[in-house]
Amino acid sequence: MTDADLCWLALNLVFYGPSAGTRRLLARFRTVADVFRAAPADFEGLRIDPAAVESLVSGRALGLAGRELEKVGRKAYTLLTLASPDYPGYLREIFDPPFVLYCEGDPEALRNPAVAVVGARRPTPYGRAVAEKLAGDLAGRGCVVASGLAAGIDACAHRGALRKGRTVAVLGSGLDVPYPWENRGLHREIAARGAVLTEYALGTAPLAEHFPVRNRIISGLSIGLVVVEAARKSGSLITAQLALTQDREVMAVPGNVTSELSAGPNGLIREGARPVASWEDVAEALPSPWRENLLARRDEKEENSGASLSRDESRLLEALPVDAALPIDELAERTGGSVSSLLALLLGLELKGAVIQHPGKEFQRRL
Amino acid sequence: MTDADLCWLALNLVFYGPSAGTRRLLARFRTVADVFRAAPADFEGLRIDPAAVESLVSGRALGLAGRELEKVGRKAYTLLTLASPDYPGYLREIFDPPFVLYCEGDPEALRNPAVAVVGARRPTPYGRAVAEKLAGDLAGRGCVVASGLAAGIDACAHRGALRKGRTVAVLGSGLDVPYPWENRGLHREIAARGAVLTEYALGTAPLAEHFPVRNRIISGLSIGLVVVEAARKSGSLITAQLALTQDREVMAVPGNVTSELSAGPNGLIREGARPVASWEDVAEALPSPWRENLLARRDEKEENSGASLSRDESRLLEALPVDAALPIDELAERTGGSVSSLLALLLGLELKGAVIQHPGKEFQRRL
Repeated sequence: MTDADLCWLALNLVFYGPSAGTRRLLARFRTVADVFRAAPADFEGLRIDPAAVESLVSGRALGLAGRELEKVGRKAYTLLTLASPDYPGYLREIFDPPFVLYCEGDPEALRNPAVAVVGARRPTPYGRAVAEKLAGDLAGRGCVVASGLAAGIDACAHRGALRKGRTVAVLGSGLDVPYPWENRGLHREIAARGAVLTEYALGTAPLAEHFPVRNRIISGLSIGLVVVEAARKSGSLITAQLALTQDREVMAVPGNVTSELSAGPNGLIREGARPVASWEDVAEALPSPWRENLLARRDEKEENSGASLSRDESRLLEALPVDAALPIDELAERTGGSVSSLLALLLGLELKGAVIQHPGKEFQRRL
Repeated sequence: MTDADLCWLALNLVFYGPSAGTRRLLARFRTVADVFRAAPADFEGLRIDPAAVESLVSGRALGLAGRELEKVGRKAYTLLTLASPDYPGYLREIFDPPFVLYCEGDPEALRNPAVAVVGARRPTPYGRAVAEKLAGDLAGRGCVVASGLAAGIDACAHRGALRKGRTVAVLGSGLDVPYPWENRGLHREIAARGAVLTEYALGTAPLAEHFPVRNRIISGLSIGLVVVEAARKSGSLITAQLALTQDREVMAVPGNVTSELSAGPNGLIREGARPVASWEDVAEALPSPWRENLLARRDEKEENSGASLSRDESRLLEALPVDAALPIDELAERTGGSVSSLLALLLGLELKGAVIQHPGKEFQRRL
């Protein structure tokens, strides 16, 4: 941790990330360290809160940063600042790159740009299946999948990626503030096999206004963004707009026009987003050399995953839809089997990764 | 019927429509009548079958045309030729306009360009619902819907249009050769309320090679073409290509990427076709003044169709999917009603136009 790193951390603690004020500030001073060597008069005309100026010139902000750094060290988190050689180059390019990235897990996961997979918090079984499959296929070919650890499509994207490779989650809260609660186990898995990131200080609550701001980091870390399911006027569409302003490739998964959650992606496609159905479509949409790299990679796990199924299992699998969840009673009616024998078969299929179980004993074939 | 009309009819009977040979022929002679006044030597170098030349110069072709005209008159069909003032102007513009249109019904239905709605012969309930709804909404606003009278999406488009307005069918056989057999009732309804067209002579069988040729007339009669569901490499995609070469607006209805029958439309969209979900989307895609005309028209039948439903009917309707057909047993299970009482309610809803019944007592809510 250099002095410059500490200065960026202090600036972040005072201003909670980039803003019009910090842009004016950084335009006036030659380096970030100069900000902390300045006299109160040097801040005149910048329209910066006097309390913030006080904190900067008094050394109080640097003191806070030192204590934050200690806490980060105790948690075994990593800090990347705009002064760090490891700060991702493609994230640095965006209009308002975060001053600081708190990282839980392996910062190496940020070396290459990711592909972001985002979408609705309450998706349909169709959206879940496509998000998980797409993320898994991309991750299996060495592509890191970025998302926001939200319920729904985000969680499916992370889970799908973890089955085959690595994934990165960007939070709207401090790393030590688990949110949403239901995804705390997923958070731990991502940290163990990829990275969980945030620009927010330890202990920061997941305020609603953080999420649109957080979204610029998800797209900023990525070379392309895929929207899987999203209602009209939803957060995912805002992320898509951000991705466009960042010159990222915007993709969307088309869906039935009778589904409200496909109105978002279909609308994006109408406005020029590229429709994608598979990892190959995503690869084709990416600029060189990412396109060629991805197309050349084999998914080794896929090739080893042809777990042999019994005849009963294969037959049952064929009766299950890929884009809907079927209640066990209806499955029994369709197949003529007893509920108890079906449940035994389904458990085996779930362990082999061929079936997804939904709450209420509803089942879906994994894509 | 003028002499020129009779000459076009004779030319059509000899050559079965435009071809490279007829293009060379028509390039040599000043008018179509001149073809029939020529000597055998005038045909030298045109690489035209000697038997065809014989038929033209001997007067035999004109004799055949005279007899065909009599038969057409007995059937109360109308003939439009390239020499008729009523021949549709926008169809005349295409590279190879038919010499003759046999018309059963009202040729007035061809006065303005249509919107074509085409697709798979064995569509899903989703495709059926969308085709019927789209065609009905367009027809209800005065737009003629063109299609090919095939099983599946074509039939749904014609039926949907007939509920609200007019539709035009283009055949790959003679007007008096009912094909496909299952649509002969639909054929009669279209003739009574719109027009059934073909360039093939009376008695011509529906040969497989006629259909791709026929498709240029469907798109040629239309200002825009909507593909609803289609497999990869299907006939509907060929029609879409034809429509593009004719400078028609090509539109497609996106669908779930897990559905094979949405691979065609989604692929067209990837290649630049406009995704459409509703009649408004179709209207927005059309050039002026068709766009403005369509957007300005009210669907009067829609406004009068708010048939009042009982509470039981409304509740049952809500339990029915719009994009799938639900077997009566599963419906009974979901709603807790008895099969017999449900069937009575469903019959009422079908009569009110709110429900579609599929074979095997499966039901779907009408979009």
